[in-house]
Amino acid sequence: MLPKALDYESLNENVKKVQYAVRGELYLRASELQKEGKKIIFTNVGNPHALGQKPLTFPRQVVALCQAPFLLDDPNVGLVFPADAIARAKHYLSLTSGGLGAYSDSRGLPGVRKEVAEFIERRDGYRSDPELIFLTDGASKGVMQILNTIIRGEQDGILVPVPQYPLYSAAISLFGGSLVPYYLEETANWGLDINNLRESVVQARFKGITVRAMVIINPGNPTGQCLSEANLKEILRFCYQENLVLLGDEVYQQNIYQDERPFISARKVLLDMGPPISKVVQLVSFHTVSKGYWGECGQRGGYFEMTNIPPQTVDEIYKVASISLSPNVPGQIFLGLMVNPPKPGDISYDRFVRESKGILESLRKRARIMTDGFNSCRNVVCNFTEGAMYSFPQIRLPPKAIEAAKKAGKVPDVFYCLKLLEATGISTVPGSGFGQKEGVFHLRTTILPAEEDMPAIMASFKKFNDEFMDQYEDYRGYSRM
Amino acid sequence: MLPKALDYESLNENVKKVQYAVRGELYLRASELQKEGKKIIFTNVGNPHALGQKPLTFPRQVVALCQAPFLLDDPNVGLVFPADAIARAKHYLSLTSGGLGAYSDSRGLPGVRKEVAEFIERRDGYRSDPELIFLTDGASKGVMQILNTIIRGEQDGILVPVPQYPLYSAAISLFGGSLVPYYLEETANWGLDINNLRESVVQARFKGITVRAMVIINPGNPTGQCLSEANLKEILRFCYQENLVLLGDEVYQQNIYQDERPFISARKVLLDMGPPISKVVQLVSFHTVSKGYWGECGQRGGYFEMTNIPPQTVDEIYKVASISLSPNVPGQIFLGLMVNPPKPGDISYDRFVRESKGILESLRKRARIMTDGFNSCRNVVCNFTEGAMYSFPQIRLPPKAIEAAKKAGKVPDVFYCLKLLEATGISTVPGSGFGQKEGVFHLRTTILPAEEDMPAIMASFKKFNDEFMDQYEDYRGYSRM
Repeated sequence: MLPKALDYESLNENVKKVQYAVRGELYLRASELQKEGKKIIFTNVGNPHALGQKPLTFPRQVVALCQAPFLLDDPNVGLVFPADAIARAKHYLSLTSGGLGAYSDSRGLPGVRKEVAEFIERRDGYRSDPELIFLTDGASKGVMQILNTIIRGEQDGILVPVPQYPLYSAAISLFGGSLVPYYLEETANWGLDINNLRESVVQARFKGITVRAMVIINPGNPTGQCLSEANLKEILRFCYQENLVLLGDEVYQQNIYQDERPFISARKVLLDMGPPISKVVQLVSFHTVSKGYWGECGQRGGYFEMTNIPPQTVDEIYKVASISLSPNVPGQIFLGLMVNPPKPGDISYDRFVRESKGILESLRKRARIMTDGFNSCRNVVCNFTEGAMYSFPQIRLPPKAIEAAKKAGKVPDVFYCLKLLEATGISTVPGSGFGQKEGVFHLRTTILPAEEDMPAIMASFKKFNDEFMDQYEDYRGYSRM
Repeated sequence: MLPKALDYESLNENVKKVQYAVRGELYLRASELQKEGKKIIFTNVGNPHALGQKPLTFPRQVVALCQAPFLLDDPNVGLVFPADAIARAKHYLSLTSGGLGAYSDSRGLPGVRKEVAEFIERRDGYRSDPELIFLTDGASKGVMQILNTIIRGEQDGILVPVPQYPLYSAAISLFGGSLVPYYLEETANWGLDINNLRESVVQARFKGITVRAMVIINPGNPTGQCLSEANLKEILRFCYQENLVLLGDEVYQQNIYQDERPFISARKVLLDMGPPISKVVQLVSFHTVSKGYWGECGQRGGYFEMTNIPPQTVDEIYKVASISLSPNVPGQIFLGLMVNPPKPGDISYDRFVRESKGILESLRKRARIMTDGFNSCRNVVCNFTEGAMYSFPQIRLPPKAIEAAKKAGKVPDVFYCLKLLEATGISTVPGSGFGQKEGVFHLRTTILPAEEDMPAIMASFKKFNDEFMDQYEDYRGYSRM
């Protein structure tokens, strides 16, 4: 019998090539163990609410009211909802044509896109045009759409940081392009060296690949570093010289845990640089409600903003967005609320500030506890998490462990992470899922477990790591001294 | 200066090739006119709430409570929400791990997939496996994912009905495959003649195209026909003989406006047929909360169910779904509510039945009013809308109108629809956006305007059409007799 179109051997090869470790072998094993009754700590994905973070009250009140517009006429509504939430729900409903149940324009609700533009203006000090802002079902969908627009075939290269968030490698595989890696410097706190970039482009050209775009993740995922203004300038100058579109993944812009390098958007730096660069470099910037102190991952709200993209291209992107009609409307409202939160004097302002500050301050503490915890472990070194939601320690695996992994048919860091999972229930992602230099091994964990659970989790990690190193290190007495 | 990656000339050619008329030239012009203050009746897209359909109360209550879980502890919650909505909200929250703000599994919440499987079992009389059901951000996203999995290049053909809903042509262009049309018979109430199918496959083969899959839309969009069991059997036998995957777009399964041919799923017919066919033919079926009497388009909730798809392929589909993490969780809850509505004896049952019956009965009346309205117009003939949400009248354009269109640089039916829009504010989609036989012209309109507005809309259409025909018909006196 001939193979059928959905038999494995006859599937689209690009689909088969896709790898996505954040929900790969480790996650699947963790899900199995959970089914068997084992307690799993899912730190494989930045999913704050799954680890107990409470949603911010005000935005949930507003969206709940938008879902139940009949409550707005209920005489008892004031008993369960504050007046400013009621007013905001009316505002957002007035921006829709038919409430949350109606498709919006495929770019998202014009009124919400206006709120996003105003937010960007306040943040960057430059006018932003709502017509160049598209709302999406989470930032990932936007990234995928832009990559699909750019990539024509395997001769098209995309510069991606290594280690990287595997959305990029996965989407590039799916669309049949070529990933061109540039390495972040672990010894320089995961900094970006512009000379590495040049070398990557030259090497790609040598293989017949034209690099067309460059991805930056700022703050970094999985590496947590925050790019300085000087570094961003170098990157933009490089994009100008090499004729590259810059894709700025800025979804962690609210997650900053140090004061030396506050977040600065690629767009602000670009416009600060003035012509010709500011008029020429094509930039697409991404943001989301899934991260920050919101963590509203399940709502799937995001946007991208385009700078220096010609109108004809914007029309093409609009056309393709139209095929799936519209991003989900509740997610759009969350995005509006994120960029336009309660203001001083509003009834809900104090509560909103208290809740969001509480989350951010706790994340900052957890970033510190985790870095220190990892650095106190044998054969583990870890840069401080300057931003984002992850810790990315290097695990110096002894040769015997690498051999044992080989025997088990596993990549060494997968081997380590599986053992960690079985022993402790901590579900991480091996560094190989993000890319790392040859012979160097990492794991990624989120910093999201509840603050009060952190000491126990780090103790459990330390105990496992000690036993692992005891088992596989040759001169255990020596290296413990 | 060299073109940049997001300049029009250097975009992915497949992106440029995409056409999506439902939000194409007519929609864009309608949006402009609306901005200028003209009253527009948006019948271009099946978007019931945008035309005044009220959401069903019970599901909205449940999802509102899921968005605001803090209300569940509020002593006043019973004043604004019925007890069964509160209970159901608790049920759905218990199926999540972290509420609506947490990513779910990339296939959707296991508990909701179980409810979907139970619904399918009740509907078809055959066991359904939740592991073969994936929840999606609306049905379109699922269709796109499956087509992307199947299509490897332009030598891969997909049989698509003509006229078709342009999601299919657009997605096939985007993924670089070949659309292989099969024509529905307008004179046989848009029936599907199996001989046409064979001929289409032969012709495709002649061009070097291997047909790998076939799409059916049942009930039909834009044509409204309901497929009979006998017809479905022929189709499945044909898929078996030709080794085709069947994609069953069944999003209008609740929208049936005649009693002779109730909806019957492709899956039930397949399993009824017994081996070998029932064990071999690969089928993917799609459904959504956007249609039916729900019309919750903006929530973006859908699912697909796979039959006879091997586990290794299911794993690949799961992997690709993982890249965008999870479908939106509120949309998943709506889907759960759709497949598991209130039961007799529940507090909200009577209201739910009253509301949903009201919508369906009114749609049935509107389908009739619209068909009769069109058939009363000069040079317009229209099949009855047996199901779905659309009317697809044929407009017999006089040669002079076709000439005038040519002079204006427009496709003739685009010309007609633009004039209709400017004169009446009725925003339709030209038949050319769906495909039609050479020299034959149609338009698609939804049957969704409010029942009480229908007579005025049809009168306005008739007046426009009379004037149009007066202007362009040679022997106006004659053909009016």
